[in-house]
Amino acid sequence: MPVANTKAPARIQIQYPTPTVDGGRYPAKRVVGDVVAVTADVFRDGHEVLRAVVRFRGPGSRGWTEAPLHPLDAHVNGVRWGGEFTVTTQGRWEFTIEAWSDTFATWRDELQRKLGAGQSDLAGELSEGVVMLEQAMARARETGDRDAIESVLEVLGDPAGAPAAALAPDLFTAMERASERTGSTTLERPLALEVDRVGAAFASWYELFPRSWGGLAEVEKQIPAIAELGFDVLYFPPIHPIGESNRKGPNNTLTAAPGDPGSPYAIGSEEGGHDAVHPELGTLEDVRSLCATAREHGMDVALDLALNASPDHPWLKAHPEWFQQRPDGTLKYAENPPKRYQDIYNFNWDTEDWRELWQAWRDVVVHWVETGIKVFRVDNPHTKPFPFWEWLIREVHAVDRDVVFLAEAFTRRAVMRHLAKIGFTQSYTYFTWKNSRGELSEYVSELAHGPEREYFRPNLFINTPDILHAYLQHGGPPAFVSRLVLAGTLSPAYGIYSGYEHFENVPVREGSEEYLDSEKYETRQRALDGPLLPMIRRLNEIRRENPALQRLENVTFLETYNEALIAYVKSVPGNTIVCVANIDPQHAQEGSVVIPAHLGLAPAFAVGDLLTGEHYDWRIGPNYVRLDPAGKQAHVLRVEQQ
Amino acid sequence: MPVANTKAPARIQIQYPTPTVDGGRYPAKRVVGDVVAVTADVFRDGHEVLRAVVRFRGPGSRGWTEAPLHPLDAHVNGVRWGGEFTVTTQGRWEFTIEAWSDTFATWRDELQRKLGAGQSDLAGELSEGVVMLEQAMARARETGDRDAIESVLEVLGDPAGAPAAALAPDLFTAMERASERTGSTTLERPLALEVDRVGAAFASWYELFPRSWGGLAEVEKQIPAIAELGFDVLYFPPIHPIGESNRKGPNNTLTAAPGDPGSPYAIGSEEGGHDAVHPELGTLEDVRSLCATAREHGMDVALDLALNASPDHPWLKAHPEWFQQRPDGTLKYAENPPKRYQDIYNFNWDTEDWRELWQAWRDVVVHWVETGIKVFRVDNPHTKPFPFWEWLIREVHAVDRDVVFLAEAFTRRAVMRHLAKIGFTQSYTYFTWKNSRGELSEYVSELAHGPEREYFRPNLFINTPDILHAYLQHGGPPAFVSRLVLAGTLSPAYGIYSGYEHFENVPVREGSEEYLDSEKYETRQRALDGPLLPMIRRLNEIRRENPALQRLENVTFLETYNEALIAYVKSVPGNTIVCVANIDPQHAQEGSVVIPAHLGLAPAFAVGDLLTGEHYDWRIGPNYVRLDPAGKQAHVLRVEQQ
Repeated sequence: MPVANTKAPARIQIQYPTPTVDGGRYPAKRVVGDVVAVTADVFRDGHEVLRAVVRFRGPGSRGWTEAPLHPLDAHVNGVRWGGEFTVTTQGRWEFTIEAWSDTFATWRDELQRKLGAGQSDLAGELSEGVVMLEQAMARARETGDRDAIESVLEVLGDPAGAPAAALAPDLFTAMERASERTGSTTLERPLALEVDRVGAAFASWYELFPRSWGGLAEVEKQIPAIAELGFDVLYFPPIHPIGESNRKGPNNTLTAAPGDPGSPYAIGSEEGGHDAVHPELGTLEDVRSLCATAREHGMDVALDLALNASPDHPWLKAHPEWFQQRPDGTLKYAENPPKRYQDIYNFNWDTEDWRELWQAWRDVVVHWVETGIKVFRVDNPHTKPFPFWEWLIREVHAVDRDVVFLAEAFTRRAVMRHLAKIGFTQSYTYFTWKNSRGELSEYVSELAHGPEREYFRPNLFINTPDILHAYLQHGGPPAFVSRLVLAGTLSPAYGIYSGYEHFENVPVREGSEEYLDSEKYETRQRALDGPLLPMIRRLNEIRRENPALQRLENVTFLETYNEALIAYVKSVPGNTIVCVANIDPQHAQEGSVVIPAHLGLAPAFAVGDLLTGEHYDWRIGPNYVRLDPAGKQAHVLRVEQQ
Repeated sequence: MPVANTKAPARIQIQYPTPTVDGGRYPAKRVVGDVVAVTADVFRDGHEVLRAVVRFRGPGSRGWTEAPLHPLDAHVNGVRWGGEFTVTTQGRWEFTIEAWSDTFATWRDELQRKLGAGQSDLAGELSEGVVMLEQAMARARETGDRDAIESVLEVLGDPAGAPAAALAPDLFTAMERASERTGSTTLERPLALEVDRVGAAFASWYELFPRSWGGLAEVEKQIPAIAELGFDVLYFPPIHPIGESNRKGPNNTLTAAPGDPGSPYAIGSEEGGHDAVHPELGTLEDVRSLCATAREHGMDVALDLALNASPDHPWLKAHPEWFQQRPDGTLKYAENPPKRYQDIYNFNWDTEDWRELWQAWRDVVVHWVETGIKVFRVDNPHTKPFPFWEWLIREVHAVDRDVVFLAEAFTRRAVMRHLAKIGFTQSYTYFTWKNSRGELSEYVSELAHGPEREYFRPNLFINTPDILHAYLQHGGPPAFVSRLVLAGTLSPAYGIYSGYEHFENVPVREGSEEYLDSEKYETRQRALDGPLLPMIRRLNEIRRENPALQRLENVTFLETYNEALIAYVKSVPGNTIVCVANIDPQHAQEGSVVIPAHLGLAPAFAVGDLLTGEHYDWRIGPNYVRLDPAGKQAHVLRVEQQ
């Protein structure tokens, strides 16, 4: 069989580039301002000297910019190369890697080794050099380079002086600048980065039910105080009209009394559906005003996106084909036997009218985006088709790239990962159920250092209207302090649901994670006066002041010689934070936090507790700590001398 | 933006299928008869019951065959599915995975849970059942299935009996057989398996220089004895005419005396090139006869494929453009400064005439294949272009799929891996330089359990004409015994170079890995009478009798409480082998081999030493061993009661 190509196939291999997700199938995520570290295996047959660069471009950019790659492990004869570039705008970035053989450097390197070995008959080698230099002369764009090359060309005929002249650093620099990219190879296709605004990764969330605060206009009045506490996102469960049919009563009872407000997740009534505002909460104009006030205070308002309908939702009449109808004409309400949600109907994603259904949801989201909502907490995305989310997020980002989508999926890890891969900006996690040192360090290490680090941004909600963990139920205020410090220092994004600051911890019954008298089914009287607020304010302040706490991948867990004490360090250049928390809410615990030498700290250094202002002398090796539920339950220590 | 498709996109995800190499870029390797274990993540949104199969086909086959996949970790609510199929012929196999939603099983599962919860109003559910059963009736191909469905259909109107009838196992079986593959999804593209003959993975190699044995005809006479020793492959360094110009003398000296035979790697003289036989060794007809005799004894003959030329090679005159010419007209001999190989010229793979050059090599290989050579040990493949090898191996396999290519690349790991990925059947390894317990267990574990297990087949040569390791130089016969047992039991493929059985261990000088009076530069007098041969014969016999030793991925290293003792177990159903070797060639060593419980052996069991015939009582937990260079240096223990 004859060979088909006309030019010899490329000899350089570029393999295993990073950052990538599933070999390039999905984009890795970054935020504006991030320095993107790029690595790849670069090699070819033989012993030629190679060069490599990363080429990158931002959204809408046609031309590529280059940055050099360097061998990372040349000292062990390795093949890994690395370099970096900075992403400066939101949107889809692309990068690729180019590598080529450096013929002059290869020739120079061999010549040098031959001279070192005392070889003198180098006429053949020098004849190669003459050709290379002459060709480079023709290519060189700078006069200085041409001069440097020409002056060496003039002496290359002289067997005595020639080799030394050929090795001159000036010539090397000139030749490199005038070099041709021999046998240049690039990745088969560019790799993608999805770049979000900083707030998509680093944010403190506060969740409240507006009806418990007097409606949207009253909530707007609280904005300055909430902003002053250091929160970045104010998140509301659905604010739409609530169905009357099968309305749930207090504590999820099946029959509502007159005046019971119902669950805000039973969306839709004669007063409107997902694009409407519950009349008792306010108007669309109130939402607009509230979003504007939030923006003035540097905050986002987040809305719940729950794709289900009450029996009274306008779409049930307008689009019955969007719902799951039985052959006998009945509609299927939501259920996961034996659980039944009679006040909620699911959509039929397999409807033949799926295009219109998708478009309707897109219009709902864009409607809210245009009203000022830039953050959506998506309810149970794992029970709707993945392709729908991938499409919806792309569509909404085409309208406004600022929009953030948080996936509320508490399900199998693979499903949660997939939702993040296909576009969700942030994700809820298993954090609530990770309460021991072993569970926490294993889980957070996986998120920070495993493949998920490239695309899965955890948002560590400590409690939610659905989840009051037994640890909080039984641990009392020390448990709340400990979990607050953990969430706020482990992850760039964390959140609490209103009531946390009051140490609310009574379940609807023993063994349940549901709250007693849950706000999901009744209106409560809320105010911003919880006893934990001063610590929350300080923690949010610490988070903003210390860039080490604004990243996840820089966490390293530390030995404490006590399972009840968890410790970790986070570091960026110029800022190192060591956190220690007592996981035991009942007893004082003593141990030693072991600072390993590889962190690069001084043998002895001072640390200041950012929560209390106290100072300690620490050192590489074990450092005694004692944390007492009756006093301090956690340290957030900044290294003061580096 | 309107949505373009007309049917809703597939909701099922199939991810991370195995076996794969680099996400499907290269085929995984198997041999004829292998059971291929297939796994993948299979999941979708929601709670539907899923089904999945692996579909596979052999070379030249148009139709697909199916085998079921089952959830592997359903008990932890996981997403991993697995199944298997057997590859029965050589060549390129393909497989893919198909998954779909099982609507009847989903409906049945929910009905069952509702009945369990005491729900009685199931008219809507049953109306769905009627439609499903009616549709299945129309699809069912077997009368029995139609009957089973029809009999249930008749009672589905009866609210009392209907639910029980709908849950009947008979109906389930009938419905599964008549099921439609709702929302069926397959991998984007099939994955490939390259299936070789068994000897491509499991073989014992013996290397000799025919000139030291009196030429090819004399070697042919040794075939029965070599076969009787249990060797599968008899491998020769190049047998072609040797150049006269710059011929090397004994011990790699620069000047040959008259009568010095030169290095067989300096290929080509007036008597011919790579397709010719050195007249002093014999004729093409001798090669043909020798290969036929080997075949009669179940053996392969392997030839060296060294793509370089002596200054007297016919191609230098016929195709000067295939060599590296300097601008001053001189040819570049092979060198890696300060090393120089004046008797060897390299080919210019960047020649414009590369297609003819590739074709010429293909013709050389096919020439030898037609003469009876089915195995090639390729010299330094890492200094020739990767695309050339990928092409050459494919071309030769199109002529004869039996052909085996062994890559002799001692270079960077990434390069060795890449050669294996692009088609080399077997590969030389770092085994020679792994002599401590830690080095051996780390390296072999990587090969057996890391990504390389899918495509990189190690051939553990213990010595080669180029590599006499210091461990053998200084360890004497006990070192030879230990390394023999390690190579022969760790890897399905291993080899020795003639002289090993004589304990040859004198280097050309202290600190060198080259042999004194190396056969590469002079003719020796060899005979098949080394003192290690009886043990080699027994070891090869043990390898053939014990299928556990014919695989690599089944190795597990064991604790011995002594760094000088290395132990490991290999197991296949019905055959478990425990090997223990003393790595210290000077002193007796004692320790305990710890048998872990997870191997599934009985609490107490007998083992028989296949090398000595001795028997021992072993148990789960530590088992005392003592190995003494003065007596036994290794155990190869077969578990006798399982």
